[in-house]
Amino acid sequence: MIQLVKHKNIAAYQLEKAVGDMERGVDIRRLVVGDAGKFTEEMIDLPYKHYDYSKVLGACCENVIGYVPIPVGIVGPLLIDGQLYHVPMATTEGCLVASTNRGSRALLKCGITTRVTADGMTRAPVVQFPDIVRACEAMSWIEQPQNFEELKNSFDQTSRFARLKKIHPRIAGRDLHLRFVATTGDAMGMNMLSKGTERSLQTLQTYFPDMEIISLSGNLCTDKKPAAVNWIEGRGKSVVCEAIVPANVVMCVLKTSVYELVKLNNKKNLTGSALAGSIGGFNAHAANIVTAIFIATGQDPAQNVSSSNCLTLMEPWGIDGKDLRITCTMPSIEVGTVGGGTGLPAQGACLAMLGIKGAHPTEPGQNARKLSRIVCATVLAAELSLMAALASGDLVKSHLRHNRYVT
Amino acid sequence: MIQLVKHKNIAAYQLEKAVGDMERGVDIRRLVVGDAGKFTEEMIDLPYKHYDYSKVLGACCENVIGYVPIPVGIVGPLLIDGQLYHVPMATTEGCLVASTNRGSRALLKCGITTRVTADGMTRAPVVQFPDIVRACEAMSWIEQPQNFEELKNSFDQTSRFARLKKIHPRIAGRDLHLRFVATTGDAMGMNMLSKGTERSLQTLQTYFPDMEIISLSGNLCTDKKPAAVNWIEGRGKSVVCEAIVPANVVMCVLKTSVYELVKLNNKKNLTGSALAGSIGGFNAHAANIVTAIFIATGQDPAQNVSSSNCLTLMEPWGIDGKDLRITCTMPSIEVGTVGGGTGLPAQGACLAMLGIKGAHPTEPGQNARKLSRIVCATVLAAELSLMAALASGDLVKSHLRHNRYVT
Amino acid sequence: MIQLVKHKNIAAYQLEKAVGDMERGVDIRRLVVGDAGKFTEEMIDLPYKHYDYSKVLGACCENVIGYVPIPVGIVGPLLIDGQLYHVPMATTEGCLVASTNRGSRALLKCGITTRVTADGMTRAPVVQFPDIVRACEAMSWIEQPQNFEELKNSFDQTSRFARLKKIHPRIAGRDLHLRFVATTGDAMGMNMLSKGTERSLQTLQTYFPDMEIISLSGNLCTDKKPAAVNWIEGRGKSVVCEAIVPANVVMCVLKTSVYELVKLNNKKNLTGSALAGSIGGFNAHAANIVTAIFIATGQDPAQNVSSSNCLTLMEPWGIDGKDLRITCTMPSIEVGTVGGGTGLPAQGACLAMLGIKGAHPTEPGQNARKLSRIVCATVLAAELSLMAALASGDLVKSHLRHNRYVT
Amino acid sequence: MIQLVKHKNIAAYQLEKAVGDMERGVDIRRLVVGDAGKFTEEMIDLPYKHYDYSKVLGACCENVIGYVPIPVGIVGPLLIDGQLYHVPMATTEGCLVASTNRGSRALLKCGITTRVTADGMTRAPVVQFPDIVRACEAMSWIEQPQNFEELKNSFDQTSRFARLKKIHPRIAGRDLHLRFVATTGDAMGMNMLSKGTERSLQTLQTYFPDMEIISLSGNLCTDKKPAAVNWIEGRGKSVVCEAIVPANVVMCVLKTSVYELVKLNNKKNLTGSALAGSIGGFNAHAANIVTAIFIATGQDPAQNVSSSNCLTLMEPWGIDGKDLRITCTMPSIEVGTVGGGTGLPAQGACLAMLGIKGAHPTEPGQNARKLSRIVCATVLAAELSLMAALASGDLVKSHLRHNRYVT
Repeated sequence: MIQLVKHKNIAAYQLEKAVGDMERGVDIRRLVVGDAGKFTEEMIDLPYKHYDYSKVLGACCENVIGYVPIPVGIVGPLLIDGQLYHVPMATTEGCLVASTNRGSRALLKCGITTRVTADGMTRAPVVQFPDIVRACEAMSWIEQPQNFEELKNSFDQTSRFARLKKIHPRIAGRDLHLRFVATTGDAMGMNMLSKGTERSLQTLQTYFPDMEIISLSGNLCTDKKPAAVNWIEGRGKSVVCEAIVPANVVMCVLKTSVYELVKLNNKKNLTGSALAGSIGGFNAHAANIVTAIFIATGQDPAQNVSSSNCLTLMEPWGIDGKDLRITCTMPSIEVGTVGGGTGLPAQGACLAMLGIKGAHPTEPGQNARKLSRIVCATVLAAELSLMAALASGDLVKSHLRHNRYVT
Repeated sequence: MIQLVKHKNIAAYQLEKAVGDMERGVDIRRLVVGDAGKFTEEMIDLPYKHYDYSKVLGACCENVIGYVPIPVGIVGPLLIDGQLYHVPMATTEGCLVASTNRGSRALLKCGITTRVTADGMTRAPVVQFPDIVRACEAMSWIEQPQNFEELKNSFDQTSRFARLKKIHPRIAGRDLHLRFVATTGDAMGMNMLSKGTERSLQTLQTYFPDMEIISLSGNLCTDKKPAAVNWIEGRGKSVVCEAIVPANVVMCVLKTSVYELVKLNNKKNLTGSALAGSIGGFNAHAANIVTAIFIATGQDPAQNVSSSNCLTLMEPWGIDGKDLRITCTMPSIEVGTVGGGTGLPAQGACLAMLGIKGAHPTEPGQNARKLSRIVCATVLAAELSLMAALASGDLVKSHLRHNRYVT
Repeated sequence: MIQLVKHKNIAAYQLEKAVGDMERGVDIRRLVVGDAGKFTEEMIDLPYKHYDYSKVLGACCENVIGYVPIPVGIVGPLLIDGQLYHVPMATTEGCLVASTNRGSRALLKCGITTRVTADGMTRAPVVQFPDIVRACEAMSWIEQPQNFEELKNSFDQTSRFARLKKIHPRIAGRDLHLRFVATTGDAMGMNMLSKGTERSLQTLQTYFPDMEIISLSGNLCTDKKPAAVNWIEGRGKSVVCEAIVPANVVMCVLKTSVYELVKLNNKKNLTGSALAGSIGGFNAHAANIVTAIFIATGQDPAQNVSSSNCLTLMEPWGIDGKDLRITCTMPSIEVGTVGGGTGLPAQGACLAMLGIKGAHPTEPGQNARKLSRIVCATVLAAELSLMAALASGDLVKSHLRHNRYVT
Repeated sequence: MIQLVKHKNIAAYQLEKAVGDMERGVDIRRLVVGDAGKFTEEMIDLPYKHYDYSKVLGACCENVIGYVPIPVGIVGPLLIDGQLYHVPMATTEGCLVASTNRGSRALLKCGITTRVTADGMTRAPVVQFPDIVRACEAMSWIEQPQNFEELKNSFDQTSRFARLKKIHPRIAGRDLHLRFVATTGDAMGMNMLSKGTERSLQTLQTYFPDMEIISLSGNLCTDKKPAAVNWIEGRGKSVVCEAIVPANVVMCVLKTSVYELVKLNNKKNLTGSALAGSIGGFNAHAANIVTAIFIATGQDPAQNVSSSNCLTLMEPWGIDGKDLRITCTMPSIEVGTVGGGTGLPAQGACLAMLGIKGAHPTEPGQNARKLSRIVCATVLAAELSLMAALASGDLVKSHLRHNRYVT
């Protein structure tokens, strides 16, 4: 077999199919690649056995040589909208789970209230016209309600779940960038958006035969790149959450005061991020939690770029202002509970632990929305804990025992 | 044991220590947590056996209940600076490895040239003075070369590797945000920066006893949040790479033309990202590659927020402009080959396959810098392939067979 | 009189009223202020005579001590949408008028085509609720079409011209920032927006008595501050324009080549601005033209911050690509032909020269929109000329003879 | 004469020279242009007599047909660093002078303290190399101290005042964008920077003959475009100022409370601008004041785009927190007291009233720096007043009497 691959009688990426046994296929690829790269020995510690590759191949990864295990820590119970959750976080950053857990503990009595304020995945192709006149005509055409309906019909026919909500057109010379926004059931939805958008463009082209489709994505989507458009108009789920932490908890569990926390939040999360020229990064470390939950639950961790957008606000509350009101506003959490990595066994188990594995049986989209609320609430717990640690100044002493620093 | 934990005779996070057997500790925690959350059965598919927890505990994760395996695909050989590499990518996004591999193939003859143009991790505390007059005095004081030397001495004493290069002070009313920049050997370096910065601040405080340290991080660092400061001044490694793809490869392997690629790059990666209000996101999908290599090699995937900053440029080259010159400029790749997740066996194996496991024996920093060059070069391969797919319009057809869409 | 002012028997700002002669009022104020500041002599060169203060007082300025004359140069004829214009520009920057004029000359045969793609002034108050739950309820309420209609009725009743088009709500913890968008006839419209928005909020408050109006402006408007929201969603008039410059004009008038211009546009206006972390500044010097026309025609020059947002694109065109296609896309031109400084005689004269003084007699809004198209077209002419000067490298030699450098 | 111009025997722009009398030249141009544009009558209200064109021609404007008078209101006395100033503001925005004046009054006892924290004008050419290797070599070469000295020598020889402080290189593929930073005496300095930069590039080219100068400006300067680079690294003068407003003044003069002001500042100037995706616009209306002083004193009002960057901070102060501490931080005020419009009589008079006309006799740069401090302090007064008006909710009622709304 190895010889066959080396002599290109079998394509390396089709090994599993050729040998009819997935693990054996992976094994052979390791031998071939290890030999070619002269790192057979170095590869030994990369595990590959006892893993069900059937869900991986043709869906999640190609040219597979094994897997990296990411440790999963459990945070909670976290009281979200009256229900208790244990949240799995896959991370290799020391203290992150412990710190988030401290936040959960501080919030256990008061709980966290969450709301999803918007829901819509996006895809923005770029199309070109002969001149700005035609581009403007197309823009006007799309903005007519009956024409939008026609484009929506084309779009919606491509999926049981994808439902086009609007098209935001942007002109750039003779090009139009059309940002399609759609609900996508319990899927994160990029794939649905691509299909529906392509179909809509075909319909549009029957009216504008001089339109040239430059690319199904013109970067106004915007996927996996920092972009004000996601911060301002939202992408995926837009979520906000809130907690009121009693004075004694701030003192006894968080070891600091409301005064110090509010002052720090203003100087770091608002002013500091303003100085840094940040758009959407008005928080302490939302990306840590987003990434850890994303990896645990089979989301696309590259989407933490936009999904981590977060505004953390704090203010004194209650009599004498000794309690703390804290909110996290996250406009662009890109998540799903079906498709992608969610179909893998371990990742599916993490979703199952949260009660949101797969599609919601009766209300499509509720599982994905619940996941977004859990992400937002866990971010709040983690913000609270890290900010308290920074405010009390014990971050360096307590965390340097471990290998890496939380921020 | 379970009863002891439930009744809080043993703290849940100390289970491993209490039972003296790590895997058994994890097992008990699963039972306790599964019972508390009523998801014992749901958790079954989350693996936890046959894993060496000794490297995890006290270093990478707490409250561990198992691990999620992330499939690792292998890309290459990729010809970087005259040397062949096989690059491991941990991902659950279908087509990503295959597509990047196609890019590698297209680049196999011409190869990729890379350069590291800057190297410096950052940490920016915020300190407060009684008024702007004192803040300005401190700012001036720090800018005096001999005073900087004194702060540098304090900083450098905290580590064998950390070497302070400069302090960029920013004033905001009576606060100073001091962005410390230092080289950190083969470590990503946040931890070193924190230690050194804290020591420097102590020294500064002897000269400015009226200075109050508000927080070791004031968000100007900027870690894991979108921020223009990293794009403009760099963070971690600043890397640029380049390839000249011959006309026939563009045609036969990439199935498109230089004209189409250059046009698309202008309309998508430059204009489209400009329309989106992006700072640093002038590329097609750098974050995909950064994240996949980060997870495979034990980096902090939450740091892909800044590390994915990338400017992809394309221009015609050669006689008749039929060849393609492509460059990727990435100013803020935050990587290390020691510390954090790099110490875990599987992740260490992936580093070993690249020949950069652990600290460089003679020139500290060379391994981390090589990792940053590999990241940048692999991004170039992936940009080339996806852009070609978009230009030739076959993205939807070819990719929709799989579960998710590449961008 | 002077004694009366000094002893505060007459308020300085009411001098004109008190003496019953405006110029004499200004004269007395000069004496009082000159004496107080000991700069009576220094003030001599600041003219104040022969000026009609009746349009100034109570409308455009207070505590008036004279005026500064800004030289007005004339540019043109500029061929815009088939009509010739002579555009007045008030500036003290040497070469600016001459350079823009050269651009006009180059465009005289081909002409410039313009389109207004959107029209809507904005005002965004911030209101606070007891918690996020109530804030979300209000957000949902506003998004209901019948409720929007009710808010619109309140809004529209405050003016004959202001017509509410939409409300874009943004949540930040328990606060809502509500971006009201309305057409405003031929007025720039901030004043109308303020009135209408206040009335709408009163209506909203009858449904949400627990809503607290924090401020009529919460900076999401965004007025006179750099902001991605204006770049992405537009403010005032959104305009795009285009010209195709023949090869011989590029060579003979502009002294450069299409190849050089396109290359420079990519490296400067796209890549350079991307490197600078610009949002909306993808042009060479749109602000110069915007400011000069704004001052000449009585606009608010402080609004050039957003109004100058501009994306300049260039591409080869025609047989052999020897012609140049150039477009300017400007999404947020904030202009009016009634109100503010447009009511002053000289500024009104400049509007009259463009045929757009005051309100359009039959189609309210057409004059303001025409002004926005003239601004955009003149920007195109100026971009063309400066880019040609930079491309041919003669900028320093030719411009250093004068006092200041054009960019 | 008119016939000669019409038949192009005399170039229109050389009329003044041809007729030997400037005002008559302007007069003839008006006749020619008025006839061509058919707006002779409409032009009547645009004044042109009794104006000294000798300072305008060849320096500030071309093709002159007259001037627009901008009303100048006087604000003050304003107590800045222990000295009283009356600040001239040229504006057509009703209430702006009155409102700023109220702020001055509130600050009259406590005064405003200012500091200039940095001083350096910038110019950033873009140069191209054969490949990234050469670009990196050039970058390294420039960063060598002795080479920088050589470039500095070339630069400094071009002016008595311009002194190169540093070069910040940015790489983009095979291009380098080199941001030159220099002090420029009392001139705003763009012109000096251009000359010096060009000379430095010539020197650089002797070492890198394969370097191609694409453009003297590659937009990283960044002049007159919104750009994070100016916010983060400064441009022109970086200034900070501060005042502590006593409790009784907040109550009696500003008609509000410290609590309300601080709350509003957080919700509007920090959070609201964060939501808007602003970089540098963390204030209420700095651009209003910057623009008005710029026009009065002969600055370039198009430069208010960057010069208006401002962070306004407020916090409670004193016993019981009843006093208000307010600061304004403005990193990029681009001003000069020589060159450009400062040479015109009326504008010079406004500078003279501030005691900073022309070059400082003994310490070049002190006049320009003082102007920047006055701008910053006046911004603080205006921020205070508008924020108080918004906080007390009386903005609409009080300001709608006039023609335009202050924000």
